[in-house]
Amino acid sequence: MIRIAVDCMGGDHGAHVTVPAAVAFLARKPDASLVLVGTASVIDSELDKAGGDRSRIRVLHATEIVAMDEPPAAALRGKRDSSMRLAIDLVKSGDADCAVSAGNTGALMAMARFVLKMLPGVERPAIASAMPTQTGHTLMLDLGANVNCTAQQLLQFAVMGSALAAIMDTKERPSVGLLNIGEEDIKGNDVVKEAADLLRASGLNFHGNIEGDDIYKGTTDVVVCDGFVGNVALKTSEGLARMFAVYLREEFTRSWFTRFAAFVSLPVINAFKSRVDPRRYNGASLLGLRGIVVKSHGSADSVSFQSAIERAYQEAKSDLPNLISRHMEALQEPVPT
Amino acid sequence: MIRIAVDCMGGDHGAHVTVPAAVAFLARKPDASLVLVGTASVIDSELDKAGGDRSRIRVLHATEIVAMDEPPAAALRGKRDSSMRLAIDLVKSGDADCAVSAGNTGALMAMARFVLKMLPGVERPAIASAMPTQTGHTLMLDLGANVNCTAQQLLQFAVMGSALAAIMDTKERPSVGLLNIGEEDIKGNDVVKEAADLLRASGLNFHGNIEGDDIYKGTTDVVVCDGFVGNVALKTSEGLARMFAVYLREEFTRSWFTRFAAFVSLPVINAFKSRVDPRRYNGASLLGLRGIVVKSHGSADSVSFQSAIERAYQEAKSDLPNLISRHMEALQEPVPT
Repeated sequence: MIRIAVDCMGGDHGAHVTVPAAVAFLARKPDASLVLVGTASVIDSELDKAGGDRSRIRVLHATEIVAMDEPPAAALRGKRDSSMRLAIDLVKSGDADCAVSAGNTGALMAMARFVLKMLPGVERPAIASAMPTQTGHTLMLDLGANVNCTAQQLLQFAVMGSALAAIMDTKERPSVGLLNIGEEDIKGNDVVKEAADLLRASGLNFHGNIEGDDIYKGTTDVVVCDGFVGNVALKTSEGLARMFAVYLREEFTRSWFTRFAAFVSLPVINAFKSRVDPRRYNGASLLGLRGIVVKSHGSADSVSFQSAIERAYQEAKSDLPNLISRHMEALQEPVPT
Repeated sequence: MIRIAVDCMGGDHGAHVTVPAAVAFLARKPDASLVLVGTASVIDSELDKAGGDRSRIRVLHATEIVAMDEPPAAALRGKRDSSMRLAIDLVKSGDADCAVSAGNTGALMAMARFVLKMLPGVERPAIASAMPTQTGHTLMLDLGANVNCTAQQLLQFAVMGSALAAIMDTKERPSVGLLNIGEEDIKGNDVVKEAADLLRASGLNFHGNIEGDDIYKGTTDVVVCDGFVGNVALKTSEGLARMFAVYLREEFTRSWFTRFAAFVSLPVINAFKSRVDPRRYNGASLLGLRGIVVKSHGSADSVSFQSAIERAYQEAKSDLPNLISRHMEALQEPVPT
């Protein structure tokens, strides 16, 4: 049985989205059970509306909620009885195998790090998420947890990303690309150049330097970069996708003829939309911790939040932290040359 | 009369594209003249094919060509009679007002910097290009010339970008955004935080921190970032656009019905395509030099290469280097607080 702690109060929509999503997820997974953490009366009322089997659901009351714009340090100090904190505490105490939250990213990161601690050999946690590609998907990290990274930390991200990609794609040795501004070894800043040297000697399946367009080409199974670059790449992609959507809508609503074209094309547009649907890729993993925590997008709807729960469930089933630990140990042994 | 030096041998297609593009451009601008630099026999043959008025065209023979994959240092030392070098030399000697090349970016940058030198107060050249937005376009820099930037250099990029945006959009005080991973002042790495302080005190129209999605929202007229981040954002966008194109093609060719939908939607799709057409935005300015040099994409076709020539022409007409110099001087005066 995989026991999942869900922070029901996080995100833009709170329990109104998280509870029905959790119930729907549970209906699909007979080997999962849930601890729904938050304001008990609110959760109970949402559970009544959602219906379904409650035998595998427990509600844990929390008296506080971390606000979406609350400074992480303040939340860490002051919100010890928040739904977010209690969900993480459940992972720490072993009463849950993983936690999911759509709340404040900074606060979640700070609490997870404080409560769960880092795995041996990992200096900093990283945020990893799957991204769609021309041929499937790739796993990218770090997406914003670390704005200044050393080469050693980029190497650790590569190890953690490889472990997660191995689980997600059931691949023995996922390929790792280092995000750079050219494929040649001489390109890039000093940190990236040093990281490439470390990766080459790491025993990982290191593909080499890749460029921004390689992310969506799907050139490698894992894309490694520092959190500043990763966050900019992610947000830039979101912005471009939104601009395309706006342009398409404008062009398809320009005249009666284009409206007819839109009508005829609706199945095609819907098929296209579902392929690039960011909800399918919701669920960013906080890697490097002694426990599993998955961050959902704050604006997640029910479908989207279920994807995040599914990510946590999969990681718990494969015991990801243990796998990362073993990979980290293997890294520290001298590599035969 | 604006005199434009065109490196006809650069790019993936060489004179076959650059010469017809130059001739077509000239036909639209009665106040422009061209020096076409490269293998004279090749250029003459392309000119014969292209036809048109040759009274404002001069051909300058060059015995060498810089290869697209040639190391910049080697090109700088060894290719002093290349079409690229001679085009830049013409700007230096005052025989041309600007130069355009679709050749090797690194070599162009190295030669331009060596021959033309930097403007006073500018430490490093930056690559700037217009990007489409939901509402028009924005000017982004640096796109890859500098992988390690200081806060002072980011400030200089902002000054140069403001000057170019002022010309492009005839705006008195273009707004400047600093690319970061959050809007709050506390976000980002140390260099970006320091740059924000400098920008706030600069007298420029500083909007503040922006995030990746603000690029395509068109939140500011100018987007400032270091060359590593800018290059990743640009290439990531190219990759995402290509993935969308592949997906759309796949969905529209799936069955006889979707092919019919594609046929009906053709005018809409073409209108959409022309709005996001990267050819309209071709032409990256090498800013900070004592002279105007514009880099075209290597794979540019005729339409695309004309956009790059147009960019150089506009910058020459407005005497951009002089404008940047004046802005740099204004910056060095103490700002009243």
